[in-house]
Amino acid sequence: MVDKNKGSFTLPGEAGYEKLTLKLAKQWGADVIRDSDGTALSDEILDAGYGIYSTICIIRDHNEWAAHHPEELQQTFLMSQPRVAEEEFLSVHIMDGYYTEQFEINAGRDSMRYWQVFDRTTNREVPRRQWNYEQESGNVVIQTPELYHEYTVNFLVYRIWEEISMYNHVTNHWDKEHLKPIDPRSSTAQEYLSDWLTDWCDSHPATSVVRFTSMFYNFVWIWGSSQRNRNLFSDWGSYDFTVSPKALDEFEKKYGYALTAEDFINQGKLHVTHMPPTQHQRDYMEFINLFVADFGRRLVEIVHGSGKKAYVFYDDSWIGVEPYSSHFKEFGFDGLIKCVFSGYEARLCAGADVPVHELRLHPYLFPVGLGGAPTFAPGGNPAADALVYWNRIRRALLRVKIDRIGLGGYLHLVQDYPEFCSCMEKIADEFRMIKSFHEEGGVYTLPCRVAVLHSWGSLRSWSLSGHFHETYMYELIHVNEALSGLPVEVKFMSFEDVRNGGLSDTDVVISAGRAGSAWSGADAWKDAEILEKMFRWVSEGGAFVGIGEPSAVPGYMNFFRMAPVLGIDEDTGARVCHGRWQYEVSTVPGLMPEGVKIPGRENLMLTDGKAKVLADQNGIPTVTSHDFGKGKGIYLAGFEISNINTRFLLNLLLYATGKDLLQNYLTSNPQTECAFYPASSRLVVINSSGADQTTWVRTAQGEMEFTLKPYETYVKEIKQ
Amino acid sequence: MVDKNKGSFTLPGEAGYEKLTLKLAKQWGADVIRDSDGTALSDEILDAGYGIYSTICIIRDHNEWAAHHPEELQQTFLMSQPRVAEEEFLSVHIMDGYYTEQFEINAGRDSMRYWQVFDRTTNREVPRRQWNYEQESGNVVIQTPELYHEYTVNFLVYRIWEEISMYNHVTNHWDKEHLKPIDPRSSTAQEYLSDWLTDWCDSHPATSVVRFTSMFYNFVWIWGSSQRNRNLFSDWGSYDFTVSPKALDEFEKKYGYALTAEDFINQGKLHVTHMPPTQHQRDYMEFINLFVADFGRRLVEIVHGSGKKAYVFYDDSWIGVEPYSSHFKEFGFDGLIKCVFSGYEARLCAGADVPVHELRLHPYLFPVGLGGAPTFAPGGNPAADALVYWNRIRRALLRVKIDRIGLGGYLHLVQDYPEFCSCMEKIADEFRMIKSFHEEGGVYTLPCRVAVLHSWGSLRSWSLSGHFHETYMYELIHVNEALSGLPVEVKFMSFEDVRNGGLSDTDVVISAGRAGSAWSGADAWKDAEILEKMFRWVSEGGAFVGIGEPSAVPGYMNFFRMAPVLGIDEDTGARVCHGRWQYEVSTVPGLMPEGVKIPGRENLMLTDGKAKVLADQNGIPTVTSHDFGKGKGIYLAGFEISNINTRFLLNLLLYATGKDLLQNYLTSNPQTECAFYPASSRLVVINSSGADQTTWVRTAQGEMEFTLKPYETYVKEIKQ
Repeated sequence: MVDKNKGSFTLPGEAGYEKLTLKLAKQWGADVIRDSDGTALSDEILDAGYGIYSTICIIRDHNEWAAHHPEELQQTFLMSQPRVAEEEFLSVHIMDGYYTEQFEINAGRDSMRYWQVFDRTTNREVPRRQWNYEQESGNVVIQTPELYHEYTVNFLVYRIWEEISMYNHVTNHWDKEHLKPIDPRSSTAQEYLSDWLTDWCDSHPATSVVRFTSMFYNFVWIWGSSQRNRNLFSDWGSYDFTVSPKALDEFEKKYGYALTAEDFINQGKLHVTHMPPTQHQRDYMEFINLFVADFGRRLVEIVHGSGKKAYVFYDDSWIGVEPYSSHFKEFGFDGLIKCVFSGYEARLCAGADVPVHELRLHPYLFPVGLGGAPTFAPGGNPAADALVYWNRIRRALLRVKIDRIGLGGYLHLVQDYPEFCSCMEKIADEFRMIKSFHEEGGVYTLPCRVAVLHSWGSLRSWSLSGHFHETYMYELIHVNEALSGLPVEVKFMSFEDVRNGGLSDTDVVISAGRAGSAWSGADAWKDAEILEKMFRWVSEGGAFVGIGEPSAVPGYMNFFRMAPVLGIDEDTGARVCHGRWQYEVSTVPGLMPEGVKIPGRENLMLTDGKAKVLADQNGIPTVTSHDFGKGKGIYLAGFEISNINTRFLLNLLLYATGKDLLQNYLTSNPQTECAFYPASSRLVVINSSGADQTTWVRTAQGEMEFTLKPYETYVKEIKQ
Repeated sequence: MVDKNKGSFTLPGEAGYEKLTLKLAKQWGADVIRDSDGTALSDEILDAGYGIYSTICIIRDHNEWAAHHPEELQQTFLMSQPRVAEEEFLSVHIMDGYYTEQFEINAGRDSMRYWQVFDRTTNREVPRRQWNYEQESGNVVIQTPELYHEYTVNFLVYRIWEEISMYNHVTNHWDKEHLKPIDPRSSTAQEYLSDWLTDWCDSHPATSVVRFTSMFYNFVWIWGSSQRNRNLFSDWGSYDFTVSPKALDEFEKKYGYALTAEDFINQGKLHVTHMPPTQHQRDYMEFINLFVADFGRRLVEIVHGSGKKAYVFYDDSWIGVEPYSSHFKEFGFDGLIKCVFSGYEARLCAGADVPVHELRLHPYLFPVGLGGAPTFAPGGNPAADALVYWNRIRRALLRVKIDRIGLGGYLHLVQDYPEFCSCMEKIADEFRMIKSFHEEGGVYTLPCRVAVLHSWGSLRSWSLSGHFHETYMYELIHVNEALSGLPVEVKFMSFEDVRNGGLSDTDVVISAGRAGSAWSGADAWKDAEILEKMFRWVSEGGAFVGIGEPSAVPGYMNFFRMAPVLGIDEDTGARVCHGRWQYEVSTVPGLMPEGVKIPGRENLMLTDGKAKVLADQNGIPTVTSHDFGKGKGIYLAGFEISNINTRFLLNLLLYATGKDLLQNYLTSNPQTECAFYPASSRLVVINSSGADQTTWVRTAQGEMEFTLKPYETYVKEIKQ
């Protein structure tokens, strides 16, 4: 049985503030104390009987070794700025536009084998004999280019400044040595890092958990030379920073075909997570994932050998860690720590196959938060911030068990914020209570199995690519966030899963995204087998919910390939002279809570005129429902997260699967939600809004009314 | 020398209102009296010494003959509504959804050769042996379809109700016989129609001009069975209504390859003028154009043989007439009559190679106008309407000579509107005066040769497809309308023209349109030769003005293929993680008149950061200028017609070609425009607004100030 007032809480300690550290450890019920970037723990803290987490980033802070092994630095491909040929030769200064403190040309023999020059006007590679690299000038010179064609050079660079420390350095105007990132690809580097870790463990006896941040390779972050365009590229899920001639050679040996620089450069577009991956990209990701898991496992074994546990913090150099890959278990991690702003991030953490799931809550104990707004600084209100963040996470925690929570940053900052300290005490207690209900038997869930379908499938469960505020422009992250706290089963499905029978245990498929994106599915919808399976499944009773440009791909009669199911399609310009069906807006009682807002979209057109239009804007439908055999196609022109829209989504799931909208253990007021725990005989009702709310809930004991204060969590015993 | 108070005016006469007819003929200076749909001319009018126009539509009003020759009716291909296969056979009732008063299945042996069944899920045609047409039920039955694939049938129908009379019939609740359209494809029909016309000419001795409306084939207008979706398809430039087995067989003989139903049906999209034409479509249009010109010429010869002239009214069944095709002259028409709402329509008419160019002005003498608003009815103000329409036309007439103007409709309606009668008198006088200046030597034009580049080139000079209010959603019609009154040379250029050296006598190329459209150019931009020629031309001093999604085509490094020239491109989703250049908005003195409004567009990004941003919206550039060699790329996110935006466009043309913005014979106030006629020593200043305006004009005699009343035309003698 969980102690509802103690444990499952990680406190950031701070040397010099021993009394505060131990006082708050008690108040918040901490069982673990951690260090943070920029803080240390004193002996008084280390010896106080708490578990101790220590943070390490294995690939940086080895500059002396790096100086002797410059070829062991991490690398990446870059593409030169495009140049138009206007003469008999074209000279391209390849580093133009790139931040030379981050990159250094790798013109070694192994590297040059991978360089390429492209005629971007024709998409053709320029033969090797036609160009040459002049080391002294840093120019690639192309002989007899096609006049007025545009050329680029794909080349390889070492990365000479580890990006996260580079960012902190530049942002905070540090004046320290630039830390270089070591590539653990070679056995030389692996031996060095293994030895280093062994030494580290030996010299940190008080540490009970080594917290890796994260493994070896950072997400891709390319900086520019101009102050006007410093951030040239940044994608949280891209693997380009793992590349090296050695890695590519090993890939070729393993997969039987060679990758080229262009497989990474992709016409200068690189590969953003929001676009569907190519097969080469998938192969390469799998290749890197295996490598990271293999050497990662060996590092974890060193940690275990020293009697400590190994947790991984899922951020920064997380590439190749992939919590939803089948290789994740191979690391042997004892815990996964995820910093969270949103409910979907809590679900992401909870769903990974690892013994301990821990959340790092916001706000961090820093003077300013995201975007520079004050937190623990004049003008800040950290208690209010904490409540708002908790409100986003809490509904997800009602659905799934998380094992631990905690904070990060500088503890001394909370001294002047007693309200924050009480608020955090309450949050910690609420968290432990919810956790106990999960441990006693879990939560009641409606018999509604939802699959979110996209190109990545389960590998990108819950998150698209980073935090909500980085991906808010995609409908799907709003959908995922809404789903994170709904009383339904949720899984993430790829098109390969559809081919392999994944629809058989699915009641609803959701597809949400812009045409051509990974989220909409792009070319996957060209496959007739996918359509056959989807159509058959809907016809036999399934429900397809399409949002934005679901199943959209050009080249066919329908732009939305699911148009026969949805009864609505989008005109991409070829149907501007085709008439539009007139319609009346129909109502389904109880389906649309007052205040639902679905954004409009242009160029939509009903196909057979049989779709029920449930809402519209400017004379164009925004919500439709269309029967297809025994099943339904539901279309939403868009979706944005809000308490009311979230409840509308739940109602749609019930409606689409032919269920009564009035179910036990649902609140009547969409500003509130609830969760029922049969084994604990407890109903938890939450107010997700900043105002007082009254709601009814139907239970086995009849209807009950509740009135809750802003963001309140209320627990009621319900005997079944 | 033109009589400035008489002539060049066509009056609609009306039997029963002889006095009014002759009175207004005098007041407006008419030299010609015409009949209209629904009016007749009495002997008193016919004998009054005026030229007489008589309207005929050659292909309808022959129902008795048609009853005996049902196979001589006009036809079209239709596609059945799509059906998903869920059993071992699929039965498709092919006429479902179509208006059976318009169409009748042609299941003759010649016709059936052209029918096709398609699996739209795979884009594959179903072999003929796998389907069968059951005449009694009207069903096509497909055997062993692929389960859950979607199927359609392409089939041929006779059109049994001529569309324009069908529209008038339905709209006005007529209770008359349905007129059937005769296809003049066969020699039988041609003989009949030739004889009929000969008789008609003989029996109308008073007629001096036979006005054809227009020739044989209507634009495509497909009606649906449902009141909720009556207008299934309507495109003013499509050729599908010309089709027949006989035409297709002759096409195959001539071109050496056979067209299929799918060449017309095009996945149910048909071919809207706004999309780039396929080569098959171009071949077929040329084939029909030749046929229409050939038989049309024979009819014109009949008219000429009877001592009359033959004018063609450019509307309704105009397909195959094509005033900008090289075959237009072959008809031997004596005049082209165009009904006009807009300046670009006046330019379209003026530019055709024909002796007489005549405009039919608005408002028509009908009780209600477009959209049902009253004109000659209580609540209407036809004088005000006439002035607004005249204001749109007048600036085009300042640039090019039009020979005649006139009205249409029921003359008796003007009796209660004396203000309209005076207004029209003034318009007629102004028109004759402007015409006289053109005849005396023409207008001063700036040395700036502008080419509008799109897939259709000169074949679709000025108009996209019909009137402004039908195509207002396309940027290009706004551009054409602005250009129609600017003091620059304007031509329309195809990509074939670019290949053939068309850029050599061009200073500015304008490309405006949505990606994939005929106006933007779509796949034409895949051709490296086009880009080489464009890049070289700009580099040597040309100016490229791109609006909307110019030169956009997927599959390359740049989405806008002219991005190296423009310095700006659009992110279609693959560059969401790429940084955006920061910029300052720069100013070019005098370039942007106060009040310019350029609509914003999402997903634009500067490429090399060197473009000058001249305006922006929501942090995204809307107007940019980028140097490329000695030339410039100018980008506008959009364009909407207004007096101020029109002047901005002129300024951009001057700026892009390196000219001084302060030129002689330009007004300082963008609400006004002017035109200078050196041979006549006359400066015409017009107020294009509904308010008083003051403006300066620089002339050879120095700066002059003018103050004009709303819509006023002011003429000033200027000695050079």
